[in-house]
Amino acid sequence: MRETVRLKNTGLRGVTVADSAISFIDGEKGILIYRGYRIEDLVAYSTFMETSYLLLFGTLPTPEQLDSFTQQVKAMRTLPGHVIDSMRLWPKNARPMDILQASVPLLSMTKDREEGDEPDRRICLECSIGLIARLPSLVAVWHRIRTGQPILEPDPNLDHAANFLWMLQGKKPDTATAGDLDICLILHADHTFNASTFAAREVVSTRASLYAGVSAALGALSGNLHGGANTKVMEMLIKLENEPDIEQWVAGQLRRGDRLMGMGHAIYKTGDPRVAFLKTMGKRLEKQTVTKWAAISERIEKAALALFAEQGKTTILPNVDFASAPVYHLMGIPTDLMTPVFAISRVAGWCAHIIEEQFADAQGKPALYRPQAQYVGEYCGPMGCEYVPMKTR
Amino acid sequence: MRETVRLKNTGLRGVTVADSAISFIDGEKGILIYRGYRIEDLVAYSTFMETSYLLLFGTLPTPEQLDSFTQQVKAMRTLPGHVIDSMRLWPKNARPMDILQASVPLLSMTKDREEGDEPDRRICLECSIGLIARLPSLVAVWHRIRTGQPILEPDPNLDHAANFLWMLQGKKPDTATAGDLDICLILHADHTFNASTFAAREVVSTRASLYAGVSAALGALSGNLHGGANTKVMEMLIKLENEPDIEQWVAGQLRRGDRLMGMGHAIYKTGDPRVAFLKTMGKRLEKQTVTKWAAISERIEKAALALFAEQGKTTILPNVDFASAPVYHLMGIPTDLMTPVFAISRVAGWCAHIIEEQFADAQGKPALYRPQAQYVGEYCGPMGCEYVPMKTR
Repeated sequence: MRETVRLKNTGLRGVTVADSAISFIDGEKGILIYRGYRIEDLVAYSTFMETSYLLLFGTLPTPEQLDSFTQQVKAMRTLPGHVIDSMRLWPKNARPMDILQASVPLLSMTKDREEGDEPDRRICLECSIGLIARLPSLVAVWHRIRTGQPILEPDPNLDHAANFLWMLQGKKPDTATAGDLDICLILHADHTFNASTFAAREVVSTRASLYAGVSAALGALSGNLHGGANTKVMEMLIKLENEPDIEQWVAGQLRRGDRLMGMGHAIYKTGDPRVAFLKTMGKRLEKQTVTKWAAISERIEKAALALFAEQGKTTILPNVDFASAPVYHLMGIPTDLMTPVFAISRVAGWCAHIIEEQFADAQGKPALYRPQAQYVGEYCGPMGCEYVPMKTR
Repeated sequence: MRETVRLKNTGLRGVTVADSAISFIDGEKGILIYRGYRIEDLVAYSTFMETSYLLLFGTLPTPEQLDSFTQQVKAMRTLPGHVIDSMRLWPKNARPMDILQASVPLLSMTKDREEGDEPDRRICLECSIGLIARLPSLVAVWHRIRTGQPILEPDPNLDHAANFLWMLQGKKPDTATAGDLDICLILHADHTFNASTFAAREVVSTRASLYAGVSAALGALSGNLHGGANTKVMEMLIKLENEPDIEQWVAGQLRRGDRLMGMGHAIYKTGDPRVAFLKTMGKRLEKQTVTKWAAISERIEKAALALFAEQGKTTILPNVDFASAPVYHLMGIPTDLMTPVFAISRVAGWCAHIIEEQFADAQGKPALYRPQAQYVGEYCGPMGCEYVPMKTR
C-alpha cells in the first residue's frame, strides 16, 4: 500500500504540488518573476503581447517573432458568429464571469484536435493565441449587447489594450490610458499556482482540452476570494464615496469581524510588488476626475493598517485587487467587468500552465490530480451502515 | 515563515487534502460507500433519486422527503428558453462535453444568489436539485437538436432514468432497461476526491458559484484519463467488432506500450466493486442483440490480464468505464454521449461536495486551495534575469 501524506483542511497552503518553470514568487521579499524576469523590468520595458509570448514560449521573442505573434493575435480577435448570436439570447443581467465561462467551451468547437485524440502542443499554442485574442472581444461584445449598443469590429491599428477599450467603449483611448491598461495586463498575467491556474492545470491533467481548462479557471477566478475581489473592492469604494468618516467605517467593519475587501494575501507577507505600479497609475488617472478614488483608498488603507498593527497583524497589506479597482474605474471599466479584465490578462498564464501540464518533459511530467479525503462520515462497521427499508423509516 | 511540504509531480496521489463525510473507498478491499451505505445495498434497495437525496442531505429520506425531492426534480426538468435557442446556433459536430460545460453557467443566470453575495446553503441545495434535473435534459435536447429531431417534453410520469431515455430516444424504455440505467446512475454518483470532484471543490473554494464548480467539473470529466474513458472504451470495442484475433490485438497494443482503455484505477487495486453489476447488466442486455459486446469485452479482459500477470502486474484490472461502455451501447446511447451520461449521475456527488466545501462547519472548514509550485525555471541571481532590449536580441 502506498504511503499516505495527511494534510489538514488548509487548501494545500504551503504545499509544493508540482514543478513549474513559468513564474516564481518570493512572498517574504515581495518579488514576482515570470520566466526569469522581474515584473519591474517587464513593466518598464515590455508589453502585454511580449509578456504573453514570454509566458507561452519561455523566452523573450526576437523582433520578427514578436511581430508574427502580434499579427496572429490581431487576426483572431473576431468572434465566431454562433457565439455572438447566442449572446444576444442570454439574460442581460447575467454575471459577466458566467458569460465568459460559458463562452470559452463554445470557442473550442472550431476543431482544436484535428490531428488526433491526444492534445498536440502546436495546436494548443494556436488555441492559446486564439484565447488571448478573443477573451477581450468576449468581454467587450457582451457588454455592448447587454447595454443595447452596436458591436464594434476590432481595429488592427490598435494594440491589445487599446483595442479592448475601443471595442468596449466605442472611443479610442488616449495613449497614456492604453499604456496603463497594458501595464495592468502585464501585472496580472501570471502568479504561480493560484486557485484559477491550479484549477486549469487540474482539469487538463485528465487530458481535457485547453478550453475546458481555461473555462474552469474562469469559474475559479469569479470567486470573491480570488479575482472577484476587485469588483468587491470597487463596490466598497463606491459605498464610501460620500462617507465622511471612513476611518470609523473601517473600524466598525473590523470590530464586527467582517471582511475588508482587498486586504491580505495568501503568499505576500511584506507587500505585493504589483501594488506600487497601480497606486501611481491611480494617482495619475484621478487628476482628471472629481471623485478622488485613490484618496479614498489611501484613507481605508491607512485606517486598516493602523488597526491591524494594534492587533499585531503586520502581514495584512493591500493586495493587487485593492489597487486595481480604482484604476479600472478611472479607465471607465464597469465594476462587474473588473474581474473579466483580470481574466483578459491571466489567460496568458493559464494557457502557459496548461501547456506545461500537458507537455512537460518526462522528468517533470505531472500526473492526473487525484488526491484523497479523510472520511469523517458514517461508517458502521466493515460492511457500512445497515440500509433501513423505506417503510420502516 | 510557514512550513513547506514538498511533493513530487504525482498529482497528489496518496495525499489526504481535506475531510469529507460524503463517500469512502477502500481500494484494497474494493469497498465503495456513500454517506455510510455500501453501494451493494443502494443498488439492491435504492434508486438514483434516493441516492441523490442521501448524498446531498446526508441521510436516507423519509417517504415524504423522497416524494417531495422527486417532485422538485421533476418540476425542474425543463430547460430555460435561452439555453435551447442558443443550442440551435451551435455547431452540430461540437463535443457534447463542451456543450455541457458551456450550458451549465447559462443555467446560473436564473438568479442563484438573491439573498446576497455570499453562497447560501438553501439556495445551493435548490440549485443542486435544478442541476440534477436539468443535466439529462441538456444531453437529450442537444442530441435531438444536433440530429435534427424534434425536442421532446419531459414526461412527469417517468422516473429519472426512464425520462432521460425518453427525451433522448423518443420512445419509452422497457422497465428492465430503465431500471438498469438507474443502477448505472447510482454506481457513478460519487467517488471521493476524483479529478472532477476535486476541480469542483477547488473552484468553489474561492466562493465561486455552484454552477461555476459544476461547469469546471464537467471540463475535468471530459478528459480521457477520467470520464472520457468510457467513450474511448466503446471506440475500441467497435474497432474490434469484426477482429478475429482479439488476443493478438491486445498483445500488440501492450507490446507497443499503447494504453489499453478501461484497465487500471488510481485507487482500486483488487477490483472495482461497480464492475460486477455492470457485467451482469451487459450480459442480460446483449441477449437481444447480434453483436456480443460483453463477450468481446471478456476476451479483451482475459487476454490483457494474462499478459499483465506475466509482467507481474496484478493490480491492473477492468475499471468502471470498461464495464459501462457496452452497457450504455446496448441501451442505445451514442458513443460520444457516454461521458455525458456519467455526468448525469456524478452531478449529484459534485453538488454534495460543493455544498460540503462551502458550508462545512468551522472545525473542518476547508480553505481556498492555493498550493505552491517548485520553481524550476530561469532565475539569474536575486534580481532575476537581465532584460535584454529588443534591438540587441
